[in-house]
This record gives sequence, structure tokens and C-alpha cells, in this order.
Amino acid sequence: MYRTNTCGELRLSHVGQAVTLAGWVQRTRKMGGMTFVDLRDRYGITQLVFDESRDAELTAQANKLGREYCIQAVGTVSERSNKNPNMPTGDIEIIVTGLTMLSTSDTPPFTIEDNTDGGDELRMKYRYLDLRRAAVRKNLELRHRMTILVRNFLDSRDFIEVETPILVGSTPEGARDFVVPSRMNPGQFYALPQSPQTLKQLLMVSGFDRYFQIAKCFRDEDLRADRQPEFTQIDCEMSFVHQDDVLEVFEDMARYLFKEVRGVELPAKLRQMTWAEAMRLYGSDKPDLRFGMTFVEVMDVMKKGKFSVFDDAAYIGGICAPGCASYTRKQLDQLTEFVKRPQVGAKGLVYVKYNEDGTVKSSVDKFYSEEDLLELKAAMGAKDGDLVLLLSGDNANKTRVQLCALRLEMGERLGLRDDNKFECLWIVDFPLFEWSDEEQRLMATHHPFTMPNPDDIPLLDEHPEQVRAVAYDFVCNGIEVGGGSLRIHDGALQEKMFKILGFTPERAMAQFGFLINAFKYGAPPHGGLAFGLDRFVSIMAGLDSIRDCIAFPKNNSGRDVMLDAPSELEPGQLEELNLKVTL
Amino acid sequence: MYRTNTCGELRLSHVGQAVTLAGWVQRTRKMGGMTFVDLRDRYGITQLVFDESRDAELTAQANKLGREYCIQAVGTVSERSNKNPNMPTGDIEIIVTGLTMLSTSDTPPFTIEDNTDGGDELRMKYRYLDLRRAAVRKNLELRHRMTILVRNFLDSRDFIEVETPILVGSTPEGARDFVVPSRMNPGQFYALPQSPQTLKQLLMVSGFDRYFQIAKCFRDEDLRADRQPEFTQIDCEMSFVHQDDVLEVFEDMARYLFKEVRGVELPAKLRQMTWAEAMRLYGSDKPDLRFGMTFVEVMDVMKKGKFSVFDDAAYIGGICAPGCASYTRKQLDQLTEFVKRPQVGAKGLVYVKYNEDGTVKSSVDKFYSEEDLLELKAAMGAKDGDLVLLLSGDNANKTRVQLCALRLEMGERLGLRDDNKFECLWIVDFPLFEWSDEEQRLMATHHPFTMPNPDDIPLLDEHPEQVRAVAYDFVCNGIEVGGGSLRIHDGALQEKMFKILGFTPERAMAQFGFLINAFKYGAPPHGGLAFGLDRFVSIMAGLDSIRDCIAFPKNNSGRDVMLDAPSELEPGQLEELNLKVTL
Repeated sequence: MYRTNTCGELRLSHVGQAVTLAGWVQRTRKMGGMTFVDLRDRYGITQLVFDESRDAELTAQANKLGREYCIQAVGTVSERSNKNPNMPTGDIEIIVTGLTMLSTSDTPPFTIEDNTDGGDELRMKYRYLDLRRAAVRKNLELRHRMTILVRNFLDSRDFIEVETPILVGSTPEGARDFVVPSRMNPGQFYALPQSPQTLKQLLMVSGFDRYFQIAKCFRDEDLRADRQPEFTQIDCEMSFVHQDDVLEVFEDMARYLFKEVRGVELPAKLRQMTWAEAMRLYGSDKPDLRFGMTFVEVMDVMKKGKFSVFDDAAYIGGICAPGCASYTRKQLDQLTEFVKRPQVGAKGLVYVKYNEDGTVKSSVDKFYSEEDLLELKAAMGAKDGDLVLLLSGDNANKTRVQLCALRLEMGERLGLRDDNKFECLWIVDFPLFEWSDEEQRLMATHHPFTMPNPDDIPLLDEHPEQVRAVAYDFVCNGIEVGGGSLRIHDGALQEKMFKILGFTPERAMAQFGFLINAFKYGAPPHGGLAFGLDRFVSIMAGLDSIRDCIAFPKNNSGRDVMLDAPSELEPGQLEELNLKVTL
Repeated sequence: MYRTNTCGELRLSHVGQAVTLAGWVQRTRKMGGMTFVDLRDRYGITQLVFDESRDAELTAQANKLGREYCIQAVGTVSERSNKNPNMPTGDIEIIVTGLTMLSTSDTPPFTIEDNTDGGDELRMKYRYLDLRRAAVRKNLELRHRMTILVRNFLDSRDFIEVETPILVGSTPEGARDFVVPSRMNPGQFYALPQSPQTLKQLLMVSGFDRYFQIAKCFRDEDLRADRQPEFTQIDCEMSFVHQDDVLEVFEDMARYLFKEVRGVELPAKLRQMTWAEAMRLYGSDKPDLRFGMTFVEVMDVMKKGKFSVFDDAAYIGGICAPGCASYTRKQLDQLTEFVKRPQVGAKGLVYVKYNEDGTVKSSVDKFYSEEDLLELKAAMGAKDGDLVLLLSGDNANKTRVQLCALRLEMGERLGLRDDNKFECLWIVDFPLFEWSDEEQRLMATHHPFTMPNPDDIPLLDEHPEQVRAVAYDFVCNGIEVGGGSLRIHDGALQEKMFKILGFTPERAMAQFGFLINAFKYGAPPHGGLAFGLDRFVSIMAGLDSIRDCIAFPKNNSGRDVMLDAPSELEPGQLEELNLKVTL
């Protein structure tokens, strides 16, 4: 080894010890005849001291060190006269007696500090330098720790990690597949898996009973903010289970992770909320429960034949923002602008201020009497000093989604979305299908293998849109961290699902024949779920973006700007693959 | 849960307990009024008993159960009168009081037994049934266990697992890349990584210090037996290390794995053999040390101007097969045929029998005197009763490789290659380059990033073929399980390597610019290695093929016959990718 110790481990107890350290020059300071060098490695920073009066030549060498030079230093651990209580190694320094240059460094394109001066593109281009920053490195260390914890937890519960292949068959349902031309099978293509869904179901047919995999998944989607073309799932499946069995195991896992990683105790049993209730109270299938302001529907109260916008609405609902009656005109205008942004899409916003002095002021004063608004106050549970914000619209759930955006915005403004608070719950009873405006047909809300609620199976033929799925999402702080379902294990029911989803029997067979066939050989009841690892880590790390818990992420065009990938192939490669690019 | 217990856990101590089991019908037997059903799950087999005299209807149901039906049974644990000491659950049986059919099964295409009647193709097509066989399942359980052990070992040594991307840039050096067309970047392609080599080197530049990853790798090669287009590596890299530091950590890891998995104690320090010595003594860079029969070079002894084949040879060497002087003419002819097979490629074989009675009989009796052959006997260290086998040729190393095949064949015939014995060693001092007859140029023996032996750097310009690499392989029982090297961390030396390997500066920059640039910012000395996980598991499991430790392997044409992948795309998919197939 080039070192006897790391730059994070030396303490007062090591004083007098001869040591060798290796690392990077964080900074150098010259003070009189002394030169101080902060030497950094993954484990910390240790101060090196060069004393001109003791060794002029060595100190001259030290004075030539630049930022990010990689060096090796030999010396003796010494107690600092001027201790730094902010550093674990702040009680000691190294009196250097020997210095070896391992590599010099050009001036880095941005500072290697927690608060760097590097912009996003530059940091990504030089990601290998960005990763030197402790703030980024800690996220990857946390990711490593979480995967170790997840694996050991699941192993202790008899789950087996099974690697499923990356080169699989194309199943162009749901998102687009990335495909891989096969040279050995000319004209044919593999696909990269969008998830190991069907393969893990086959493992259940195989009797594997309790499977997991920390698995790379791939989706060729137009990238919205914070999506990656490749991402990682904690993918799990169990046999012989009911919904509660699955929820229990993974609630335990979440409880274990939050405790180990963040020291946070989740409740002994997580709340379960139906999808319908979540939509009704929060306008979202991933409600943020760190704060209240649940929706109140006020159709009866506000439909009085006085205000045509409300009279014609299919939904009128609102939230009560505590203590916000003092909002200024400007603040209220900002909120109106906020809901009218295309991303939210509301036509307008009605506000009612219930002032501390008992007076009421609203944007609909000319339509409603004070009595009307006091009736609203009671319905909303508002107190003096509160602000009631109402939205309405001709599609109940679309309006609820707009109101959700407003609720989250108010939570943000009121500082109620605390990164260090974790509110987890299960959303259950999702609808099995959802209508696609784009495709003009019913689509599977999750995927075609989801088990319908047994009580609703009679509705499948006439009212499929009313059928609930045995599906569940794990939600934390308004983010969907995981989700899953019980699966169909009956071939006939699976064929019926394919039919409702518009598959011809031939197409279903061509794409999912292996699964339909497998179900002929004693398929067990099974179900499972998958957590988004990138998302889970970023919540634990308090990150806004998943990018900083991924070592080498891609940008919004799906490019790795460091590797400069993707790129054009050499003509010979295309020829070997029997392909021609047609631009 | 559909069960209270698994099919592997009930014992005499559970007698009297009411239980519910779920699993698959392994077989049914009717004996008088009793029906016995062997119920199987991942954990074992438990006997169910149905008694016609107690419940005729239930027993009638049980009599209709077919092989591989998936059922749930309720009953009471009872002591068997007729115990089966070969089964962990053989002391008990379940007196069944309730039976639920979970799924029926068609007759499986082969028997779900350790010794199945299914051929390879059939087993692969119905891999989900093949995986029900305990013999196959155990291999995947072992694979899971080994990865848990590897991760926990490396974690305890401060290694961090970092996921590197699967969608990277194409680097058409070495094997062929699989490529992935990018829809968002028309005309451009990602490549799937042949290994995370350059990315892990970047992580060292980032200061990650000790990295590992159990990583999927991809090579689009014509598949020889027992190669897979996608395979898994235990990929590791360390900074601030010399060769011995790397070997020490991974020797410890191997020692830990062999101990935990097989109860085998490897020696406290593994033998290190230079590549040159391994070639000289075993004709192989992955010698099987489970048995002797090391090569003896007998140029001086046999070059006597008596036998032109030997007189003209660049190499004459042999092995001494103990106790084989009694080999018959037929056996010796078989050996001659063996070495003349195109896979071995020798022109012929010279044998000398040193009979128990002191007489000598050889295939070169007409050329050599008895004294000559007794001189050979002494040189070979042969005893009475031994058989000496000699090969010669005009290329020393090619002849050694042929002699290696003969040695392994003799080891096989003598039963010296015991699957339960493990002989591990390091091969060191590989040549940095090897000559490619195909490409008519020097190629990197490992890859272009391998560090030359510092002592040999002066030879780089004039005699690159003589330069040794700081590279090492981990060999067990004649199989290369892992390999690695120290890497170049100096930009100028790396550029020189690219030049010797025939890269123009432009092409080196286009392909490896990110690495060359990274080396400008204080690259630390670093090195590492990778173990082939599939290979490592198969050695531990005593398997001949890696396929049976892979859940869903591909066949020799790179096809997944179960998924029927690869396959043709829908025309719309090709169009979106701006691709045309040209067959």
C-alpha cells in the first residue's frame, strides 16, 4: 500500500506515530516559514505541515503543489496547537519528512467543494471530478449502504436474489423498449427489460417462492425532468401470499431501512388509504402527509345559483391554509398565476380570507353574501386568520389534481415539507384500468398481469372501468417509492385481461406465449412489488433529484456527456449487423 | 399466507399441530384405502395422507391430483409409522382434512426429478419447469449465497459497490460490442459494456479508493461452448496499491468463500507462479494443480542425430504418467488419436513404457538405444511401471499447449481431477502483448490499460513482445476464475501504449478521450481485478457448465428459446429508430 492510514482516521491517540498518507491536495496555505496542505481522500482530510526551518527543500516542493495533485506524504503525527473542532482529524497534523508526487493535476474546471462553482453540464462532463466532492460521494456511499441493508434484510426473510437476463424479447406494451440487434440472428433484435416483471412471475411458477433482485431496467421514453433511460429497481415477488402478506414484509423492510439509515422510527403499522380516498382528500395517488390541508368538497355550499362558474362545475373543492388570511394581493395574485400555469391548468382561483378581526374578504364577494361565506367557513373548518382557496372544474379528478398542485405549493410556502420528516403510507385499491385519451382505449393502470379485485370480477365484462385492482403503492412524502400488485395466476383470466386490453389472441400469444404456457403447469398465487432504488436513496439523502445518487447519470436527451455516448458507429459495425441508418 | 409452514420444516416436535401447507404434487401413491401425496416446495417435500375410511370424498379428490398440480392442504402433523430417514421431514406426515386446488397442471414435458428425462433444448424451452428441479434450484441458491458473502466481505473491507451504466459508448477494441440505437439521438448508438473497466478507473480518479460491483457484462462473440453473450463479473478496483495488496485482499476473499461455502481451507498464502513457469511446466496459463505430471523438457537427451523429427524440433518435452506402463496398444493408439485431433493439433506422440520388470518398450525403439531411453527415464524422473509420453514441434509454446491437453487427458483417465479438491494459485508476470496472427500485429494480452512491469519499460520501444505486464490471474483447478492488473495512471505512458497498439492519436482520443482527460487531474496509482461469477459458482457447485448456475441462459446461437428472443421488430419500431434491416 501507498499508505499506512487514511486521511480520516488519525486522532490524538496516534500522536508520535510514523505514518504514510496518500490523497489529493484540497488546498495549501503558506504562513511565514510554514506550509500547510489539506490532504483529502474518501475518508476525510488531514493537515500536513512543512517547516522551512527544518527542511527548506521539502517545503519548497510543497509550495509547488497545486489543487488536486495526487501525492504521498511520510511523516509523524503531532498534536495541533490550533485545533479545529469541525474536523474529526482536527486535533492532529502530520509533520512531513518525505513527499512523493504521484500525479500532477491541471487546474480543475470547477472547485472540488461541497458548494461548487460548477454548473450542471460542466459537472456532468467532468463527472469524475464532481464525484470527488464529499456531498456527491456521500450519496453513493448511502446507496451502497442501502443496497447492503436491503439484501441482508431480504436474505434474512428467505428471499433469493436471482439475476434475470438483460437481453430479452421485445414487448411493445407500455413504454418503448430499447432494442439490441443480434448479429448472430440477422434481422432480429433483443430488447432490454422495462422490468423483470414476466421473468419474476416465471420464477414463481418455478417455485422460487421469494425472489428479489436489485435490477437495472430500461425505458426509451421522452425524458421528463428527473427520469433516466436506465434506472434501478428493488424488484420482489412472493408466492402463496395475500395483499397483506406482501405489505407486511415490505413495511418491515422500509421500517428497517429508515431506522438504520436515518434513525427514524416508522409507526408499527403504516396507514392504508384507498386510491379513491387519496384522490378525494389529496387529489393525488401519492399524497404528501407531512401536512394537512386536506380537500373539502363544497358543492352543496357553493352551488346557490349565484355564481355561474360554480353552478356549472362538476367539482368544487378547496383547502384551508392556516394563518394565511394576511396574504397580500400580490401573494394571492401569485397563487392565481401558479394555478393558471400550463403545468397546472386551472382557469382561476377563488380565495376567501377569514380575517383575525372576524371580517371576511373574498374574490367572490359580489356573488356571495357574508352568510354564504360563513357557511363555507364552517364547511371548511376554517378559523379566523385562515385563507380558503377554492378550485372548480368540469372534470372532478382533473380539478382535484390541480388542487393538489396548489396544496403542495402552499405546503412549500408554509415550510411544511420538511426533508427530515418522513410520512409513509400505502395507497391501495387502484383502478385496474385507466382510459387513455391518446390511444382512445382502456389501458392497464399498472400492467396486464395485475389481479382484479375478486369482488369486482363480475364487472369485468360490462364495466371494466369500475374494477379495482389488488394493487398498492408505497408512498413517502408525496413520492411514489414503490408499487406492486397481486398477479393473475390463472391462464383463462389472463387471456380475458389481454382481450379487454385489445390484444388479439395471436398477438397475446406472440408476446406473452411463454407466460400463458407457464400458467398451464400449476402456477401458484403470487404477487410482489418493486421499489425505485434511485428514488428511495434520494429521499433518504434529502435530494431533489435522483441524478446525484447515480454515479454516471444521463442528461435530458439521454446522453452521457462525459463518455459522449451515444455516438455514430463505424460503417463496418452496421454492416455486420445488417443495418442501415435512414435519416 | 396460504400456508403456516413450508414443506421442509415439520419434524417430530410438531406432531399434533394443525398446519396448512402449499406446494406442488411431486407424486401420488394409492395403497389400499390410503392415498399418499408428496407435496413439494422450495424447502423440501412433506408427505400428505388421505384416508378413505375417514373422508371418502376428500380422498377421491386427492386421487384426482396429477403431477405438478399446485395445491393447499390443511391437516394435522402426525408421526409416521414407516419413517423415511432419507428425508428431513421423513419422521412425520400430514393427516389431511382439507384440500384446495390452487392450479391444475398439464402433464409436464419432462420429469421434475434430479435425474430428469428432459433433453437440453426441452429443458431450456420450459426453463420455468426445469428450475423446479432441486438440482438446478440449489445452484441458484448457491449463487445467491455467494453474492451475499462477496458483498459482505468486500463491504467489511471498505469497498463500495457503485453501479455503472449499461448504456455506454462503443469501444470496438477487443470483442465486438452489442449496440443499442438511440431514438432520441437519431443515427447514434449506445453500446453495452464489455466490462466496467474504464468506468471503474474513472471512479479511482474520483477517489473512490475501493470499488466493487457485481456487474453484467456483454460480448457479441461467436459463442463457443460454455460462453454466454451476457455474463456477470465480480468487478473490483483499488487505489494506492501494489500488486501484492490486490492479491492479498482477493486471496482473503477466496479463502473466505471456500471456507463458508465448501468448508475448504485454502493455504494461508496461495502459490504465485509466473506465466513463463506455468507455460514451461504445464503448457498453460491456467494450470490444473490437482495433480503432478509436470512437463520435462528433454531437448538435450533426445537430440542425438538419430531421429529427424526430434532433431529438427524447437521443443521436445514430455510427461510421466505413473503406473501406466501397462497401457495396451489400444490405449496408446487412443492417446495418439487424442493428440492428433484438430482441437489439439499434434502430429504424433512418442511413448516409452518403463515396464515393472525393468524392460523398456517405446514407439521409437528403432531410433534410440536402451541406454538412450534409460537416460530419458532419469531425466523424466520415471520409475518402473511408468509411461513417458513425448511431444515435439517447431513452436515451443504451441507444442506445450498440445502437451497440456495430453496431461489433462491423462489426469482425467487417472481420476486425478477431483471436483471436491480445490487447488488455487495466482499466475503472474503475463506478457503485456501477444502477437495476433489474424490481425498481424501486437495486441494487448489483457487490455490497453495494463501497467507494464517498471523494469521492462526500457524494452517498450525496441522489444515490446518481451515486456511483462503487472497482471495476474486467479486460477482454480485449471480454470481461470479471475484476473486483473495494475493500471497505467500516467497519461503519457497510456498514450504510448495506444500508439504501440496501433491507435492513431485521433482514434485514441475519440474512443478513450474521457480517460485520457481524466488522467490530467491527479490520477492515483490503481489496480484491480474481476472474477467471473458464473464460473466461480459453477466451480463451487461442481458443475461442468456455467449454464446451470444461470436462471435463464442462452443457447449457442445466443437465443433464449423460452422467450423466443431475439425476434423481428414491428416495422413502426424500426422506423422510429431510423433503421432499415438489409438482409
